Amino acid sequence: MNVHSKNVRRPESVTTGPLPGSRKLYLSPGCAPDMRVPVREIPLDPSSGEAPLRVYDPSGPYTETDFRPDLAAGLPQVREKWVARREGLESYAGRAIKAEDNGYASGDALVAPCPAQRTLRRGRDGGLVTQFEFARAGIITEEMIYVAHRENLGREAAFAKAAERIADGESFGAEIPEFVTPEFVRQEIARGRAIIPANINHTELEPMIIGRNFLVKINSNIGNSAVTSSVAEEVEKMVWSIRWGADTVMDLSTGRNIHNIRDWILRNSPVPIGTVPIYQALEKVGGDALKLDWEVFKDTLIEQAEQGVDYFTIHAGVRLAYVPLTATRVTGIVSRGGSIMARWCLSKHRESFLYERFDEICDIMRKYDVSFSLGDGLRPGSNADANDAAQFAELETLGELTKVAWDKGCQVMIEGPGHVPMHKIKANMDKQLRECGEAPFYTLGPLTTDIAPGYDHITSAIGAAMIGWFGTAMLCYVTPKEHLGLPDHDDVKTGVITYRIAAHAADLAKGHPGARERDDAMSKARFDFRWQDQFHIGLDPETALRFHDETLPKEAHKVAHFCSMCGPKFCSMKITQDLRLEAAALAEQAVIDQGLAEKSAEFVEKGAKLYLES
Amino acid sequence: MNVHSKNVRRPESVTTGPLPGSRKLYLSPGCAPDMRVPVREIPLDPSSGEAPLRVYDPSGPYTETDFRPDLAAGLPQVREKWVARREGLESYAGRAIKAEDNGYASGDALVAPCPAQRTLRRGRDGGLVTQFEFARAGIITEEMIYVAHRENLGREAAFAKAAERIADGESFGAEIPEFVTPEFVRQEIARGRAIIPANINHTELEPMIIGRNFLVKINSNIGNSAVTSSVAEEVEKMVWSIRWGADTVMDLSTGRNIHNIRDWILRNSPVPIGTVPIYQALEKVGGDALKLDWEVFKDTLIEQAEQGVDYFTIHAGVRLAYVPLTATRVTGIVSRGGSIMARWCLSKHRESFLYERFDEICDIMRKYDVSFSLGDGLRPGSNADANDAAQFAELETLGELTKVAWDKGCQVMIEGPGHVPMHKIKANMDKQLRECGEAPFYTLGPLTTDIAPGYDHITSAIGAAMIGWFGTAMLCYVTPKEHLGLPDHDDVKTGVITYRIAAHAADLAKGHPGARERDDAMSKARFDFRWQDQFHIGLDPETALRFHDETLPKEAHKVAHFCSMCGPKFCSMKITQDLRLEAAALAEQAVIDQGLAEKSAEFVEKGAKLYLES
Repeated sequence: MNVHSKNVRRPESVTTGPLPGSRKLYLSPGCAPDMRVPVREIPLDPSSGEAPLRVYDPSGPYTETDFRPDLAAGLPQVREKWVARREGLESYAGRAIKAEDNGYASGDALVAPCPAQRTLRRGRDGGLVTQFEFARAGIITEEMIYVAHRENLGREAAFAKAAERIADGESFGAEIPEFVTPEFVRQEIARGRAIIPANINHTELEPMIIGRNFLVKINSNIGNSAVTSSVAEEVEKMVWSIRWGADTVMDLSTGRNIHNIRDWILRNSPVPIGTVPIYQALEKVGGDALKLDWEVFKDTLIEQAEQGVDYFTIHAGVRLAYVPLTATRVTGIVSRGGSIMARWCLSKHRESFLYERFDEICDIMRKYDVSFSLGDGLRPGSNADANDAAQFAELETLGELTKVAWDKGCQVMIEGPGHVPMHKIKANMDKQLRECGEAPFYTLGPLTTDIAPGYDHITSAIGAAMIGWFGTAMLCYVTPKEHLGLPDHDDVKTGVITYRIAAHAADLAKGHPGARERDDAMSKARFDFRWQDQFHIGLDPETALRFHDETLPKEAHKVAHFCSMCGPKFCSMKITQDLRLEAAALAEQAVIDQGLAEKSAEFVEKGAKLYLES
Repeated sequence: MNVHSKNVRRPESVTTGPLPGSRKLYLSPGCAPDMRVPVREIPLDPSSGEAPLRVYDPSGPYTETDFRPDLAAGLPQVREKWVARREGLESYAGRAIKAEDNGYASGDALVAPCPAQRTLRRGRDGGLVTQFEFARAGIITEEMIYVAHRENLGREAAFAKAAERIADGESFGAEIPEFVTPEFVRQEIARGRAIIPANINHTELEPMIIGRNFLVKINSNIGNSAVTSSVAEEVEKMVWSIRWGADTVMDLSTGRNIHNIRDWILRNSPVPIGTVPIYQALEKVGGDALKLDWEVFKDTLIEQAEQGVDYFTIHAGVRLAYVPLTATRVTGIVSRGGSIMARWCLSKHRESFLYERFDEICDIMRKYDVSFSLGDGLRPGSNADANDAAQFAELETLGELTKVAWDKGCQVMIEGPGHVPMHKIKANMDKQLRECGEAPFYTLGPLTTDIAPGYDHITSAIGAAMIGWFGTAMLCYVTPKEHLGLPDHDDVKTGVITYRIAAHAADLAKGHPGARERDDAMSKARFDFRWQDQFHIGLDPETALRFHDETLPKEAHKVAHFCSMCGPKFCSMKITQDLRLEAAALAEQAVIDQGLAEKSAEFVEKGAKLYLES
């Protein structure tokens, strides 16, 4: 296998091809033989005697060996057959696209719409539409079967081993099952403890689940460029994010062409796409928050729901009465949506229309199974403001709204902070679980200190790993550019890998069955000096290889029993290996030489034997 | 101030000059007016109306405005006057340098010794030599006064504010004082809860303290290059580390010229230098662990103690009986020193000479006040091996040895892991405190997952921040190259900044008085759009500025009320500022318009007033 191969990035397309040393497989659950659930497999060196390592893979068909994307046609419609036969849905003509949807872009400045043809659907009143409604009705959907199979990676291997492995963790009350069954998925969704963000109009989606009793997921944010050189460039941002492990992608674009670009992204996205509809609504009223009203917001919700957006951030918890609570804050309101709504409420002396119209928002979102991501518009923007009255007042309202949304049949997750020092993180998680009936928590970081602009992926990875351990279901990534500017290609990758680290550290600490398989595979490869395996098992094979080769570039060093850190004489693992061989020889000798055996009885009995047997 | 200025790096010298936007000051404690304690001051924009921010500064004179280093002469001898008048010390001729000390380098390959002349001293039997002995005798040394003043940064400011600020933290039993007094320092050292690593022959040292009730410190590791182009290149590694915030530096060099290069480093180092003497001892016996013996080790201890090394890692806890406990490990023994000693013990069927000769080691180290860093030779090298029998057996022995060293008058800290998943970190800290009588803990990370080679500064920063919060006194950095190769200049900086983040996050969570001053200064600068202040307050002003300028390079943008992340229309802080102005106006209007006041009484009373007053 040639790990030196470069990413194939064609000017008018997106990054494709497997990660170095990996191959994509599709597996079928026993109960659904025609379902194809993706998995990434990393073959290990034959000398290891180990089966290939399987890892969770959100990257879609782009990482198949010979995938040739046709952005204009969109991805294969994994879910079309499933939704097509659902009686609760109906096809219809849909809303006409307006000039304002694309910010009045016209002529050469207008990005053409994606030509991919799809059947537009919506839910009927009284029919079963959302995963939540199906779950409550006791019905297991294809999406539930899919995610159950997807989540079980590595668990079989883990269970073949010592049973204590599974119990090795502190889950803080999470109820992670030994195996994930479709019925378990259904129960979790019915209880509101998990969601499958899956708009009925996003048929290209490879379903995934977000909940405390599943693998911790991560989200990356993308946004349009000021000047769009091609739709491929915009789609590439999503493809690049999922290539490195983003489980969902939020499109935070503003400005012109956002409707059409969003369409290109959705038709080519195998992961759930989230948006903040108030951004586009604000664009439609010329950027003046005071001109926002229910009609323009409602129209935007329908517009985006018809396109297939899987979850909406709705800042309905920013109530008029809470705005004054932010007055003495060091950093005021730092959520864009939160500040827009606060301005609206305060200027008009009126309760938020998002709060007042929440029932109607639910009715719209239910029709398309758009999941709620209840926004934390009053999240702290500094350690000084963490866990304050404004933040917690809003969280209580989000709990109230969660129950409303459930009653309306909607799936719900809750957004969380932000900037929080370590000792205040657990209180956030505990309060969220309590107030919001265990609906999945989805946090931004949190950043554990404010003093490191340029490194906020790290200040926040600390908090993200901890809150993930405590029970957060999805972590929104932070890139090195946070607080400074827009992330570029490298920043996005760094942010995604950093958050994969945080999510995985959380899975390990929770005692998630099977999570440690990958760590153990890496550790064994280290002890055996299987360098290629180390690169391939890692989250970023390209960087690992490059770093290794900076000091020991020759191919021969890929089989060397040392690295440049310590060199051959000082390699502890090499010495330990020699020591084990020596111990084996000594144990043999000890059987003959009783004198020696007596002299160091304890060692020979407990020690060398152990070495020999291990 | 021109923040664009490049580091001045002369070919035959080291990096000098202040960080962008900072200036170096020396402060004098009231009780010691001729003492000069360094501090870095960051002036803030006059519009802020705030006093300059003072931050802890381990960088030595190199960051003075006009410092011209003379490496051959070495740094000013801060401590010479102090040690010169100590009656427990005597000057003497010292050990003759041997060819083996420099790995038999000769001719052109031999690096010349550092010509700086120093008075060589050692302790007399029965005299007071170590900081521990002075502390136990109730005597406050100059070093104790120095570190007390050094630690108090920002506390005065913190105490001028609300008292609850100080209590905001969870210290897990640490007893952090409101102000650090020399007497408090003395008590902590006398109790063994803190150390001032300060070899009497390292007179260039600016003393610092390591202990749970002080600011969390960080260590960076350096090592010689395979081919040394100049001594400046080797000294630069230390200078570069402390420039970015390393509090101590370990010289892990092996191979030729290590004696002479170590001398150049020590004569030019304002921070404590640590070493692992077994590395050099192994070199002296041709790299064959089985040829190691007490004589060569003892000679190496004296050699390095005379040079002024401030702390030695001694792997005396790797006992013969524990070696077999590592047999079933996934990654065996991963400490270089640990594997060397394990091999020695196992091959010879003998107890470790480091353990058997521990009394004699103490006698030597006491004579120079070299602090112990009791090595964790059996630390886990993978999540799989964390908190296992081998690791904890060794830790218990380190506890036993701590008491021996204290009885001998030595200062002691304890090294800790390594690779530990989050849920097993606290058990490490608790056991260390219990077994080792609260002697300072000094950990490597720990790495919370094994699956991210190339990003182990991040996998370990998560664990480092947590264990620092729980009570670890010093964190040994990990660079992005860990497990892959030797770190370069950039990697060292990344490792140091990452660990400054972890240490500071720990200080915040512990509720360290004054720690949040810097975060608050940053947050206020953010809310006020003082961009230059944000860059300067941050841990890495150069990177923050560069990242900002990648998308908004013009000088005008340094005063813009937005950044490229959200743009002017979507800047939440801008909107919040507008909102506050608006609220003030509304509150005024409300006084006139009673009808309005009644309509939104709650808002006007609790809200707009608050806005007006804030």
